[in-house]
Amino acid sequence: MGEDKVILGIDPGTSIMGYGVIHCLGKTPHFKDMGVIDMRKTGDVYEKLGIIYQKTTELLSTYLPDEVALEAPFFGKNVQSMLKLGRAQGVAIAAILARKIPAFEYAPRKVKQSITGAGDASKEQVAHLLMRQFGLREMPRNLDATDGLAVALCHFYQNGLPVKSGGPKKWEDFVRRNPGRVRGD
Amino acid sequence: MGEDKVILGIDPGTSIMGYGVIHCLGKTPHFKDMGVIDMRKTGDVYEKLGIIYQKTTELLSTYLPDEVALEAPFFGKNVQSMLKLGRAQGVAIAAILARKIPAFEYAPRKVKQSITGAGDASKEQVAHLLMRQFGLREMPRNLDATDGLAVALCHFYQNGLPVKSGGPKKWEDFVRRNPGRVRGD
Repeated sequence: MGEDKVILGIDPGTSIMGYGVIHCLGKTPHFKDMGVIDMRKTGDVYEKLGIIYQKTTELLSTYLPDEVALEAPFFGKNVQSMLKLGRAQGVAIAAILARKIPAFEYAPRKVKQSITGAGDASKEQVAHLLMRQFGLREMPRNLDATDGLAVALCHFYQNGLPVKSGGPKKWEDFVRRNPGRVRGD
Repeated sequence: MGEDKVILGIDPGTSIMGYGVIHCLGKTPHFKDMGVIDMRKTGDVYEKLGIIYQKTTELLSTYLPDEVALEAPFFGKNVQSMLKLGRAQGVAIAAILARKIPAFEYAPRKVKQSITGAGDASKEQVAHLLMRQFGLREMPRNLDATDGLAVALCHFYQNGLPVKSGGPKKWEDFVRRNPGRVRGD
């Protein structure tokens, strides 16, 4: 499991993006920061995407992560919400690719499972376990922040396992090979 | 209608991205270039997205467009293909936003309608009319190139009309207000 490295976890959404940063020293992950980027103030779709790009770039400059873990649902309610989510993910991924930082994706179910042991755990359960893990006193006001932190920790746990760096070879293969990683919420 | 400006039209897809460039002098659009960026050589999803980002950035550096027009379907067959398409669109949009160039979107139906007069025209019909319009002799081998050129010309035609610069205020409003712009193929 990890040496000395910084992992940025992000949960890109169309109106709120959660993020969390951990510093891994040997086998121990340490909490560094977490928060949310709120796009609800603007109704303009391009402005929202611009905020995601700019803020992701800022997070990369601030924390200089060695790796970025993304929470990325593969399935959703309807085609239009998935297109919007895909755009939000794409903009965040572009900011990461522009810096040539390795990115890894985990489906929400996989993240919950790795933190709580249950793929159908609630956001509150995930938050509680993270608070305990990192010895944090105060629950963040917005649980999208703990979702960002959760995917960073999920990636840290995953590091001991043979996950291909840089993403799956083929989307279809990926879906077939990773039933646990592709069942969205 | 347009003064002296360059419009880059792009049709971002998950395996092929078409593009076309026109130079508008007064009321006359002139052909500058068109082509495709082929991502079929790689099966890696991140590599595909990386190519879209890099090539879009290169197109912006090469042609220095004043405006970019995107062909962007809003509806599709299933949630997974829409997520993939959304990601491809998001990465291209991020490259444009990073340069602060105004972007405009048109649904495939709107593009076809503005070039051929029929929203359900075939790719071949669109290509033929573009060849005639610009006095080009040879049809490109890949019609995704003419699709890129078509959205650039569609944006040029649209310029006389009151289209809000920088995108719609709200996705939902946009869908309601623009029935012609949101019916994808």
